Amino acid sequence: MARRMCLAALVASMMLQPRAATAQRQPDALPSWNDGAAKAAIITFVTAATIEGGNGYVAPGDRIAVFDNDGTLWCEYPVYTQAAFALDRVRALAPQHPEWRQEEPFRSLLAGDARSVAAQGEQGIARIVTATHSGMTTAEFDSIVRDWMAQAWHPVFARRYVDCVYQPMLELLAYLRANAFKTFIVSGGGVEFMRVFAESTYGIPPEQVVGSSGVVSLEMRRGRPVLMKQPGVEFVDDGPGKPVGIHRFIGRRPVMAFGNSDGDLEMLQWTVAGEGPRFALLVHRTDAEREAAYDRNSHVGRLDKALDEAWRRGWTVVDMKRDWNVVFPPPP
Amino acid sequence: MARRMCLAALVASMMLQPRAATAQRQPDALPSWNDGAAKAAIITFVTAATIEGGNGYVAPGDRIAVFDNDGTLWCEYPVYTQAAFALDRVRALAPQHPEWRQEEPFRSLLAGDARSVAAQGEQGIARIVTATHSGMTTAEFDSIVRDWMAQAWHPVFARRYVDCVYQPMLELLAYLRANAFKTFIVSGGGVEFMRVFAESTYGIPPEQVVGSSGVVSLEMRRGRPVLMKQPGVEFVDDGPGKPVGIHRFIGRRPVMAFGNSDGDLEMLQWTVAGEGPRFALLVHRTDAEREAAYDRNSHVGRLDKALDEAWRRGWTVVDMKRDWNVVFPPPP
Repeated sequence: MARRMCLAALVASMMLQPRAATAQRQPDALPSWNDGAAKAAIITFVTAATIEGGNGYVAPGDRIAVFDNDGTLWCEYPVYTQAAFALDRVRALAPQHPEWRQEEPFRSLLAGDARSVAAQGEQGIARIVTATHSGMTTAEFDSIVRDWMAQAWHPVFARRYVDCVYQPMLELLAYLRANAFKTFIVSGGGVEFMRVFAESTYGIPPEQVVGSSGVVSLEMRRGRPVLMKQPGVEFVDDGPGKPVGIHRFIGRRPVMAFGNSDGDLEMLQWTVAGEGPRFALLVHRTDAEREAAYDRNSHVGRLDKALDEAWRRGWTVVDMKRDWNVVFPPPP
Repeated sequence: MARRMCLAALVASMMLQPRAATAQRQPDALPSWNDGAAKAAIITFVTAATIEGGNGYVAPGDRIAVFDNDGTLWCEYPVYTQAAFALDRVRALAPQHPEWRQEEPFRSLLAGDARSVAAQGEQGIARIVTATHSGMTTAEFDSIVRDWMAQAWHPVFARRYVDCVYQPMLELLAYLRANAFKTFIVSGGGVEFMRVFAESTYGIPPEQVVGSSGVVSLEMRRGRPVLMKQPGVEFVDDGPGKPVGIHRFIGRRPVMAFGNSDGDLEMLQWTVAGEGPRFALLVHRTDAEREAAYDRNSHVGRLDKALDEAWRRGWTVVDMKRDWNVVFPPPP
């Protein structure tokens, strides 16, 4: 009798477990998303993707979701975070470079003359990138970024840059992974810069971060191999580069793609051009009060052609103000 | 009382389960490996890597294992499989290219004059690669390779090329994954070529295959985006390129590395140069009867400097003849 009851209890507890687990997940996997078209579209797609035999089913191996970073997973306003890093680095390195007081764009930059820096265009930017992103080992660069990330303070949002991430998107990443999606970053940002925080911040490991990169070469230093960051761009993972980067690094077409600017247009087009269920989403910055409102005329994250394409094709467009009840996580 | 016994039984069964699972795995995860130094070194390292708090412990996220492909996971003798593919493609495409009857290296190749083809060196190879690996979409190339793989027959081993994989290495891949290692290919072979069979053959998904690549560009074709394979090499993942490829694609240093030739030397050096437990292994081809015996003077998979380095540093060297009781899996 004792044994029988024992068995019955065991069976009952085993049967209860999955039901309890489902019930636990059901309430709301996306609590920072208000009820509305965007949230419904996400949940409908993901639910269908997991129902074997259904029209919207996606085999687990094919559940690849790609996310732009700047403006999609974290803030890009008023300047891209990596640009803020580069400017801080120029200031930090200036004492070792007295020649910069005469050389552009460093002279204008150190004088706080943003307009003059901007006027020097691509060439000025390239010089700043070279000065701040090359001439050290990859391990040294990792440490420099890590130290900066630990304390760099956002000028507008009263928190560290690394904490200017979007709470609704963190929930979305977790929700997708809970449904066997593999989440990737595919961003115009520097891959080595993003890998420093992608795992701790987003739960995305280094090997699932695709980004722009500079030339790297193997050298021996005191009998040990090191990787040196050289001047020169190796790959620009933006615009038409995003499908190329996806092909090169991931090797299969995503089924879901998330972006916020014209630089993401080709990634979204490439994603939805595949057969079977596909999902494309744009974050539209409409919340001047809690974060920022900009699109077609912005100097960061310009959203113009991609917005037209989204309306035309019926992609999901997130209206930040309306669709998100929280923007940033509570301060740590 | 019933409740108490029930609890006792539950606890007992819970305690039994892991022991049963361990017992199941214990018999032999590597049955094609003979008992010896190589097998013992692998098992010792992997076992230690999974014992939390031990000296050899490796956190699951850091359990990255990288494998060369040609000569390490599958046969490269008498020619690299991708070279056999390229030669077959030239023959298949020849009727559409009457001009090849006058042009080198195609003329010699179609005449079966391997010596003349070889005499044309890198430039001849580049022309063959361009003719067979560019001018189509990535999807078209995938189909071409897939069709070839399905039937291409190895001239020596009486089985398809794709079945000339090493049974002991298949077991090793599975054993590592069972112990929470993430397995990657890092090979000089073409990444798009390898991705066609890596998942079905090795259980390694496309996003965990790192290899050499050609230039790819995004184009619109009848209103749909396609990726075109262009002439020109984008990245050579061999020799000093392997640590660069690991950094670029994986973004962290492996703890285990497996190779078979001088082209793997820098990958193994890079792997063991990291702190904490590290493991490097070379497959030494010593089995002329079952497969092939070659090292320092071979035209494929030359193993010279890396062999010296392995002996000097005490890396694990597999003696195929002695260490493997089976080379290839039973024919399908």
